[in-house]
Amino acid sequence: MTRAPEGSGFLAVDSGGSGLRVVVGTAERGPLARRASDEPVRTGDRGIDPEHFMARLVPLVRALTAEAGPVRLTAAVVGAAGLASLGDGLRAELPGALAREFGVRRVALAADAVTAYVGALGPRPGAVIAGGTGLIAIGTDLAGWRRADGWGHLLGDCGGGAWIGRAGLEAALRAHDGREDGSARLLACAEEVFGPVAGLPGALYPRPDRPAVLASFAPQVAACADGDPVAAGILRAAARHMADSAAAVCPSGGEPRVAVTGGLFRMGAPLLVPLDEELAQRLPHARRLPAEGDPLHGSVRMAAELSAGPLTLPGDGTMLSVTTLSGD
Amino acid sequence: MTRAPEGSGFLAVDSGGSGLRVVVGTAERGPLARRASDEPVRTGDRGIDPEHFMARLVPLVRALTAEAGPVRLTAAVVGAAGLASLGDGLRAELPGALAREFGVRRVALAADAVTAYVGALGPRPGAVIAGGTGLIAIGTDLAGWRRADGWGHLLGDCGGGAWIGRAGLEAALRAHDGREDGSARLLACAEEVFGPVAGLPGALYPRPDRPAVLASFAPQVAACADGDPVAAGILRAAARHMADSAAAVCPSGGEPRVAVTGGLFRMGAPLLVPLDEELAQRLPHARRLPAEGDPLHGSVRMAAELSAGPLTLPGDGTMLSVTTLSGD
Repeated sequence: MTRAPEGSGFLAVDSGGSGLRVVVGTAERGPLARRASDEPVRTGDRGIDPEHFMARLVPLVRALTAEAGPVRLTAAVVGAAGLASLGDGLRAELPGALAREFGVRRVALAADAVTAYVGALGPRPGAVIAGGTGLIAIGTDLAGWRRADGWGHLLGDCGGGAWIGRAGLEAALRAHDGREDGSARLLACAEEVFGPVAGLPGALYPRPDRPAVLASFAPQVAACADGDPVAAGILRAAARHMADSAAAVCPSGGEPRVAVTGGLFRMGAPLLVPLDEELAQRLPHARRLPAEGDPLHGSVRMAAELSAGPLTLPGDGTMLSVTTLSGD
Repeated sequence: MTRAPEGSGFLAVDSGGSGLRVVVGTAERGPLARRASDEPVRTGDRGIDPEHFMARLVPLVRALTAEAGPVRLTAAVVGAAGLASLGDGLRAELPGALAREFGVRRVALAADAVTAYVGALGPRPGAVIAGGTGLIAIGTDLAGWRRADGWGHLLGDCGGGAWIGRAGLEAALRAHDGREDGSARLLACAEEVFGPVAGLPGALYPRPDRPAVLASFAPQVAACADGDPVAAGILRAAARHMADSAAAVCPSGGEPRVAVTGGLFRMGAPLLVPLDEELAQRLPHARRLPAEGDPLHGSVRMAAELSAGPLTLPGDGTMLSVTTLSGD
């Protein structure tokens, strides 16, 4: 006996530097199957490459629909890193390609900051700080979106992993040189991780993944914070930058929620304690909550909603665009 | 009638990112002729390439000796950017190659920070702040050398051109985002130079010369400092970092001299006024002097001294090595 395909199936995608993660589910029953591919979608001269995206996605979805059983896919949500600045190709081609390939009729393309937001807080007003190697804050009053920072390791990402690690290494080198505000403890840590500091420029500058190398030192800064005032000062400054960014995007009225999400916050108390203090001071009207889930969870949440009807959250030219295809 | 060749001729070289500059002269008569080549010496897997160095140098010296008249070259001083970390090949091969090619018997290889020091202060105890895209402080008590910072744009170079420009762009983006400590005036400047700031990451990150792009904005920060407290604060912080570095290398006893050198200081009063105040506070025992000359001048000064006898300044494994060749 075969089940009739359910009419509100969805596809939810999270595309980032570590690859693609995909879920198939239905509005009624939630997620039914998930798969991941660790090859990231290529970025070329035209930005994120829609053909490569589809080439990576199609076999994953075929496997998922086989696993999930008969589901009629009606909606797809793609959350993608770099969508705001590198997403023109995706915005132009992906809705049509997903419709042709899977028969979906509604497609939403969302910046990863948007899926991070929805994963953390759901479709409710507030602000989310998303921290990893970089840092961005995103907020909504349900009428529009605001974002702050997320400018990358040379122009901002203040308080993010690369920022913290870079500040820690700078403090190590200050101690090495005999300059003020150095930390002998961070110097010892840096030499444990990278060897004699004379070799540090040669180990860092030729690498294509410099921000990740810098961010790899952030946990050492957190590990030194108990007892080392320079390391603790770096985390306090990072927390202040994050609260600055959250304050710039958080609705000023009502009772907004505020949450943090992303791998950066795995460093725990040395960062979270000062951050909580800074948020309490800068956003006393906001309710601080733990994040409900990750960006893929956000993508699933939005896809379930979109398969049943329109999204609660507001569209935006670059951060969240919804396409409804006629026919079928 | 031909003159007999003079016995204390010298060759002085300044090698850096903008190419080679070479002077031929004698201890008695000083510089006689100078030439420049705007092709920088290549850096390969083994560091600065000694063969490429000689290939660039030889035709320049041939032309210079033809122009200067009969001079017997006895000494050569090569000041080179990157010598401390990338100079193993030069240290191994250049003294022999210069002896074979030009008959010199004494060769000194100096980090560009050392020739900058000697160009600014001569062979006297003190500290010199050398600022361009990067920043380094170097000091000597005539018994040894100390250096501080010079770690590059991600690990330090605090207060240098890339540091100031980066801080200025960060303040511009803070204003754009509505974060604290932003500067609307720097935002307007940044958009004048780079176009809408949404395009700034795309204009900066793919470039191989990111530090130079950042440093290109430093003059705008100086131009905004009169009347814009954020821009003035950036230059004050830069001055404080420079004074920190100078204090780390300046002899603590006696009456050391302190000077600044390099293109960064062309921005004038907006930087020099706070720097003078910070130096007066940090190094009250040091006499602040204008730089006598540039790194090529330092190289010439050392070469004239070396053609007549040993150097006053102390040797150092990586920053200043003198080779005396027997025979000839």
